[in-house]
Amino acid sequence: MSTTLKTLQLPDARRMIQAATQKAVDIKQPMNIAVVDASGYLLAFERMENAWLGSVDIAINKAWTSRAFDIQTAHLAEFSQSGNQFFGIHTTNHGRVTIFAGGMPVLQDGVVVGAIGISGGTGEQDQTVAKAGASAF
Amino acid sequence: MSTTLKTLQLPDARRMIQAATQKAVDIKQPMNIAVVDASGYLLAFERMENAWLGSVDIAINKAWTSRAFDIQTAHLAEFSQSGNQFFGIHTTNHGRVTIFAGGMPVLQDGVVVGAIGISGGTGEQDQTVAKAGASAF
Amino acid sequence: MSTTLKTLQLPDARRMIQAATQKAVDIKQPMNIAVVDASGYLLAFERMENAWLGSVDIAINKAWTSRAFDIQTAHLAEFSQSGNQFFGIHTTNHGRVTIFAGGMPVLQDGVVVGAIGISGGTGEQDQTVAKAGASAF
Amino acid sequence: MSTTLKTLQLPDARRMIQAATQKAVDIKQPMNIAVVDASGYLLAFERMENAWLGSVDIAINKAWTSRAFDIQTAHLAEFSQSGNQFFGIHTTNHGRVTIFAGGMPVLQDGVVVGAIGISGGTGEQDQTVAKAGASAF
Repeated sequence: MSTTLKTLQLPDARRMIQAATQKAVDIKQPMNIAVVDASGYLLAFERMENAWLGSVDIAINKAWTSRAFDIQTAHLAEFSQSGNQFFGIHTTNHGRVTIFAGGMPVLQDGVVVGAIGISGGTGEQDQTVAKAGASAF
Repeated sequence: MSTTLKTLQLPDARRMIQAATQKAVDIKQPMNIAVVDASGYLLAFERMENAWLGSVDIAINKAWTSRAFDIQTAHLAEFSQSGNQFFGIHTTNHGRVTIFAGGMPVLQDGVVVGAIGISGGTGEQDQTVAKAGASAF
Repeated sequence: MSTTLKTLQLPDARRMIQAATQKAVDIKQPMNIAVVDASGYLLAFERMENAWLGSVDIAINKAWTSRAFDIQTAHLAEFSQSGNQFFGIHTTNHGRVTIFAGGMPVLQDGVVVGAIGISGGTGEQDQTVAKAGASAF
Repeated sequence: MSTTLKTLQLPDARRMIQAATQKAVDIKQPMNIAVVDASGYLLAFERMENAWLGSVDIAINKAWTSRAFDIQTAHLAEFSQSGNQFFGIHTTNHGRVTIFAGGMPVLQDGVVVGAIGISGGTGEQDQTVAKAGASAF
């Protein structure tokens, strides 16, 4: 009685990374770019020249977080500030939950099939590049 | 001069999961449902179809937290916000302490005998489902 | 260009846990029983009365390991002893890789759709119960 | 009196991944492929269709290990079996040290400028694909 799960594949991830990279070049901010599949596992990753080293981990985990909770990390951020209902969620899942802008689920026919995570600039820059990458699916 | 530990058992956990699932179905929000015994160890767990993947860990740890401190996680949340007396407690115990609504201790004759942890919706939804589950004991 | 992934669902997991439990009762050894889906995430878990507390984590990670490498943990054990080709694999993936008997992938039409993990007895007992559980799919 | 660090860059990593992928296709074994720079940080990663999920972490850490100790992981494996001089090294560095075949440093003018890590098959298969990838630099 198993069911099927729709998921991104490697060619999708490559196309998304290419689009995100183009946007990052446009806004002149080097980025770390990660794409995960419907299971949350890393499909592909690229770090642009001069992108922050500490953002390798963050980009991968923004993508994972977006799939794990089917939400943009920018929105999760609102719910998880001090005083709000999900404050503290960033220490669950062995610290993988990332609660600032740049992670975005990718949908097909209303179902989350994967996610992209961007890290390397301001929240606004990360978000802009994530949108460009997600749109390429 | 040993004593005895009153504790939930597997049949109790199953009944609580069944009641929590029914409530989750009623409010149309798929949930991760965990029940721990008086020692805080996992007795039983179920993830409903389409429940958030990142909430497996959170549901289990909400239940553990409720037993570890004999408190609803919704109440612990109040004490552990920035500026309050327990701020920072969420990074203790290897990150297992979860400080948002959805964890609830279960009592018998005034003694905590286990706990339930729910994760998959808003704080209010998680709390509602946790109550339904706890009431089934 | 997404694809689909076949996966176990909660009703499958319940049936597998029921069959594993029956076998554990038959051989008089209480067990921890975990079932993960095709993504490796926990679907359902039960700890039988008097089953080892330290085996909660082990059962869950045996199931995860079987899916992560599409292999029985009893077989992975052979490859990962000192001197063999995968020695050291048990400390990868943040310590989740479990290299002794009791984890078993579940296949449909030749594709791994999830896995079961059993912990609570000897390797032989765990293996016996895992087989019984897997057969119920 | 600063100096310069010779290091792989993203275009190198892409070329290495492409060559490794081709070899993996040739031997009919899907792989996880990671390339790190001279500092050990991830430059690029790709998971081929149906490659093991548990090997995402392993491929990345084989690459890191090869740069961290300027050695092929197949060679480090020999030194770190039970009874040998580096036994136990795989639990250092938060479990990142990976001690089986598939990680290979990449040199330029006798200096390590990065590394490649392959995971998804037997030790021999991983090693074969790593060599193909490293040769593309």
